[in-house]
Amino acid sequence: MAAFPFEIRARDGAARAGVLKTPRGDIETPAFMPVGTAATVKALTMDQVRATGAQIILGNTVHLMLRPTAERIARLGGVHRFSGWTGPMLTDSGGFQVMSLAALTKVTEEAATFASPIDGSRHVLSPERSIEIQADLLGSDIVMQLDECVAFPASKERAEEALRLSARWGARCKAAFGEREDQALFGIQQGSTIRALRRESADRLIEIGFDGYAIGGLAVGEGHEAMCEVLDYAPGMLPVHRPRYLMGVGKPVDLVEAVSRGVDMFDCVLPTRAGRHGQAWTRRGPVNLKNARFAEDDEPLDATLDCPASRDYSRAYLHHLIKSGEILGQVLLSWHNLAVYQALMRDLRAAIAEGRLAEFRKSFADDGPAEAA
Amino acid sequence: MAAFPFEIRARDGAARAGVLKTPRGDIETPAFMPVGTAATVKALTMDQVRATGAQIILGNTVHLMLRPTAERIARLGGVHRFSGWTGPMLTDSGGFQVMSLAALTKVTEEAATFASPIDGSRHVLSPERSIEIQADLLGSDIVMQLDECVAFPASKERAEEALRLSARWGARCKAAFGEREDQALFGIQQGSTIRALRRESADRLIEIGFDGYAIGGLAVGEGHEAMCEVLDYAPGMLPVHRPRYLMGVGKPVDLVEAVSRGVDMFDCVLPTRAGRHGQAWTRRGPVNLKNARFAEDDEPLDATLDCPASRDYSRAYLHHLIKSGEILGQVLLSWHNLAVYQALMRDLRAAIAEGRLAEFRKSFADDGPAEAA
Repeated sequence: MAAFPFEIRARDGAARAGVLKTPRGDIETPAFMPVGTAATVKALTMDQVRATGAQIILGNTVHLMLRPTAERIARLGGVHRFSGWTGPMLTDSGGFQVMSLAALTKVTEEAATFASPIDGSRHVLSPERSIEIQADLLGSDIVMQLDECVAFPASKERAEEALRLSARWGARCKAAFGEREDQALFGIQQGSTIRALRRESADRLIEIGFDGYAIGGLAVGEGHEAMCEVLDYAPGMLPVHRPRYLMGVGKPVDLVEAVSRGVDMFDCVLPTRAGRHGQAWTRRGPVNLKNARFAEDDEPLDATLDCPASRDYSRAYLHHLIKSGEILGQVLLSWHNLAVYQALMRDLRAAIAEGRLAEFRKSFADDGPAEAA
Repeated sequence: MAAFPFEIRARDGAARAGVLKTPRGDIETPAFMPVGTAATVKALTMDQVRATGAQIILGNTVHLMLRPTAERIARLGGVHRFSGWTGPMLTDSGGFQVMSLAALTKVTEEAATFASPIDGSRHVLSPERSIEIQADLLGSDIVMQLDECVAFPASKERAEEALRLSARWGARCKAAFGEREDQALFGIQQGSTIRALRRESADRLIEIGFDGYAIGGLAVGEGHEAMCEVLDYAPGMLPVHRPRYLMGVGKPVDLVEAVSRGVDMFDCVLPTRAGRHGQAWTRRGPVNLKNARFAEDDEPLDATLDCPASRDYSRAYLHHLIKSGEILGQVLLSWHNLAVYQALMRDLRAAIAEGRLAEFRKSFADDGPAEAA
């Protein structure tokens, strides 16, 4: 039995617009989840994040288990109380971080073992421990199964091995998670860019039965075209009545293409990371505010957005802040970029509801990315 | 004729509570001005600064003339439009920065010449140029005369030389400034910690005639006791009906002592700088949030303050943010510290209005600083 009702309210081609109902609030889909790695969406207050229209954020299991530790967050009342985010939160399982961030990672049937990038200490992350951290200690609303995410490119053998281990870990996660009314567990499809493996992974996940299904193992270097090719078939392999979440994606154009292929949820560090480095997303692509052509540009980034960072400051001022290394520059560009992403999701939901997604997608492709960063 | 009406509404001993009326808004005194060095109060939005109760902020002439340049700010509509601060702004003249920040500084009768710490380029700051930058290009509300601020300790000869040059520069600033209805010009008393020189400086300034009078050349290493000794006599040498501004001061205890001695205005980087380094001011003195004793402290910094940073986040969360090098930690502690400072100024104004400043001062001295940083 699915923990959270997921109502699909409109369809347009393969795309869906719906609502995922959670005890901490509704999530309109397609949804973009800002990444709050260490229990903070970098540089922003939760009020600022909320003001962009974000209805759910993501937290990182590996970061939080290392600092301040999941047990400490539990003693402090859970990750919502700790961070001040009162809406739903999804936590990743740690599978991707163990591959990408940690050192000396060793994966066995039992668990992943890795070294902390903070102090080198050794840690063990098993499926059961990942569930304990996410569901019991952090108190996450949407819990992800532990998976093994392989780098790109991967041999067929390597990808097959990883998807099968991920499926076995998924079953152990399901057993550890049990039945819960107020929390949901999502499985993660693997299989690299190989269609038969994506099919096998999906079938194994469906057999276990999850509350939602993620498409993992993309945005790991395969590029936009290869990703779109996988998305031509992968979402359709997953249950139609449950949310589909494309992990770690992406640029606005990636979101538009993935939504058009039936994806409902996304997360990505790009808007906040780019913001901290002086890059602003616009409807016509990314621009770098360090560029001298903004030095006396008195226009705001986007006066049509209901976000102070987008509307109330000139590009000249933002250029000055970024050139001067001022924290406020990082704050405002992170804030603006999240506002751009949430506005895009609203536009996509409206386009689906009104049956004009193909038109929207075409105009989006025509508009951008028009400028290099 | 004074540009801005200054109404003293209550007195308590040497202390005064009043209102300085400017075209961009009233400033209740005693007032603390957050420092917005490079047209940003570091790490904060102007909305956050305003929400603490700040009614005026300070900008730095030397920083702004070097980057983005005063001419550029003028082309962009002045420093208010550029920064988004709509209230009154005071700009320092550059005298202190030339001494403290710049390299290869050379002071002649005509002007100070110095090298930019950004790119080593040479710049000349004369009294006339300082007024042009502040009053005409930036569009500051309260313009400071250019002065020569000597380091501490200074010989009597050196201090005398500097105060006399400052007085001659003050006269040139006054001539360059002329008569203005919507901007004010403040003179700066020098004279180090030598009473006779403070007297001579005050007399020279009064002869020129300014809209307000600053006490300069303190908070340069002389220490709290020596500063208080100067403040026992220096404010009383300045006109009673004009605002008195103690430049670059200070810790909360410095503000309480200076207000008790008749000072009306202050600026200091301490609350924001300390915040960026993990230090929070409390009624009982400064505490360092990095300290392990805050790791599981579930209390907010100060639930009695009407500031989200003080009220809505646990010390444990702030500890985590600071330990993790998260920008939000710097934002929240800077915000909280400014809220503490503005609350202190409100308390001081109320104590003066109600004739209980001596009592307030005693309880403040008893309360703090109780803890080492």
